[in-house]
Amino acid sequence: MTVRISHTPKVQELFREAAGLNNQQGSARLKQLILRMITDAARIIEDMDVSEDEFWLAVEHLNRVGKHAEFGLLLPGLSLEHFIDLLQDAKDQQVGLTGGTPRTIEGPLYVANAPMSDGYTRMDDGSEDDVAIPLFIEGRVLDTHGQPLPGAIVDLWHANTQGTYSYFDPSQTPFNLRRRIVTDASGYYRARSIIPSGYGLDPDGPAQQCLSAIGRHGQRPAHIHAFISAAGHRHLTSQINLAGDQYLWDDFAYATREGLVGEATVIGDAAASRAHGLDGRRFAQLKFDFVLQPAVTAEAEQRSQRPRVGA
Amino acid sequence: MTVRISHTPKVQELFREAAGLNNQQGSARLKQLILRMITDAARIIEDMDVSEDEFWLAVEHLNRVGKHAEFGLLLPGLSLEHFIDLLQDAKDQQVGLTGGTPRTIEGPLYVANAPMSDGYTRMDDGSEDDVAIPLFIEGRVLDTHGQPLPGAIVDLWHANTQGTYSYFDPSQTPFNLRRRIVTDASGYYRARSIIPSGYGLDPDGPAQQCLSAIGRHGQRPAHIHAFISAAGHRHLTSQINLAGDQYLWDDFAYATREGLVGEATVIGDAAASRAHGLDGRRFAQLKFDFVLQPAVTAEAEQRSQRPRVGA
Repeated sequence: MTVRISHTPKVQELFREAAGLNNQQGSARLKQLILRMITDAARIIEDMDVSEDEFWLAVEHLNRVGKHAEFGLLLPGLSLEHFIDLLQDAKDQQVGLTGGTPRTIEGPLYVANAPMSDGYTRMDDGSEDDVAIPLFIEGRVLDTHGQPLPGAIVDLWHANTQGTYSYFDPSQTPFNLRRRIVTDASGYYRARSIIPSGYGLDPDGPAQQCLSAIGRHGQRPAHIHAFISAAGHRHLTSQINLAGDQYLWDDFAYATREGLVGEATVIGDAAASRAHGLDGRRFAQLKFDFVLQPAVTAEAEQRSQRPRVGA
Repeated sequence: MTVRISHTPKVQELFREAAGLNNQQGSARLKQLILRMITDAARIIEDMDVSEDEFWLAVEHLNRVGKHAEFGLLLPGLSLEHFIDLLQDAKDQQVGLTGGTPRTIEGPLYVANAPMSDGYTRMDDGSEDDVAIPLFIEGRVLDTHGQPLPGAIVDLWHANTQGTYSYFDPSQTPFNLRRRIVTDASGYYRARSIIPSGYGLDPDGPAQQCLSAIGRHGQRPAHIHAFISAAGHRHLTSQINLAGDQYLWDDFAYATREGLVGEATVIGDAAASRAHGLDGRRFAQLKFDFVLQPAVTAEAEQRSQRPRVGA
């Protein structure tokens, strides 16, 4: 028989004290959040009959996840970052904010202040010329009426052919595969880069260890992250996920969404290759437009204040 | 108006998938626990209208707590280790397991395999002779009928005058203030040690940072940890908390309990000091008996399988 005590006045008073509600200092908001988290944790322990051994194994694992700075991977892997997107969609719908390119998760691998160019940039440093397929990306930033938005900033970042990101992979040059492009008078952005590989969790890390223990992989399809911003328009955090990847709809972080799949068409024609400044080898083309909602507040033009690294 | 989606079939299916319930590998128990944790986390986000910024600040803080290996301090600070004790008390009561010295939290600072002696030991290495008050501890291990238990193991560990523990404080000698004493034919254990200082969280660490944000300190009263074990009897994890400490009933980890307060009586009599092998300076005496319940299973004789360091 399940024994429960978390509803008793004595235990509720303990939790209120532990959450700081018996003192006048500190954040009232944080106290309410912590009270709720303590109460829910206690109920899980009761309802699921969590043993002392299980509790301390969990504590040890939490320490390990933090030691490897993998909470920003494990929680998305448990679908919570995608859930926050779905919840924001529902909130938007309730107030009539619909249309435009769907949002999807940012992930933990953004680096602020990438080099900025007008209209066109090359994103890769050429170090993978021998193995990578060159990728020409092109598209427009539009409003929900289909009007182009000149001067919008398209901030792109993606992995190399090994699935790793510059900055976090110190073997790459600074800002490799990270660029900001300002759209031209017709709303176009264009970039030369390389086809990225999918991303996988560190197979020896604590996030993958947790997913493996529940029978799950930690792979994402090949994708290109994007922040899109334009004056008077709502900031968009999204991704282009590449069609044909085996993990496109089996994404450990649930980031792929309808409307966020792009086709990187591989072209083997040598003349076309040379016309793109290549030596005749095959390359790929990807077209992807981003559509922004109007901003209803100045704050809506900004991305979240989530802590990020900057270089 | 609060928007909720966690009850919808689509989101429930997302959570089931994320918890691994759609695959046949891994631990069925862990899948159920993770499904519950995901669901509760989503409901907190909905009910408390947790913003994206709040979520990511929390993720960053979780990473920091783990980086400092402080989950074993923060969760007790939020009363959850004490809650597990209270819940076990309630479970015991339901099946009639009552009596004996109360259990209380182990804390994260035990080190296995301390030196073992028969009847008596000195616990301190003498390095604090200039500043510490010598403490003579004496008591019996008894069964619930008051009968002494010879051959019981009293495994004690406590802080030095700075509030730090050997092993975790590498400036101390190995196993300083950590000893195992086997009770004599009359059930007695005796030790010479020093009066410990209270323990406080690292003031610059993430656990204290969280408590400070809700207006709380991270101090514990001076105390002596104890594991008590004897054949045929239930393992006891407990503490002697020292009377007179300002934090005795204001303990950040809620470990002090009725029945777990000991009086370290300071004695200034020079002759008595010399009779204890000291140079006439003051010393203290502490008497504390531990009373063990009978073990109803062989497993009950053992401490939990919580991960611990050993040296």
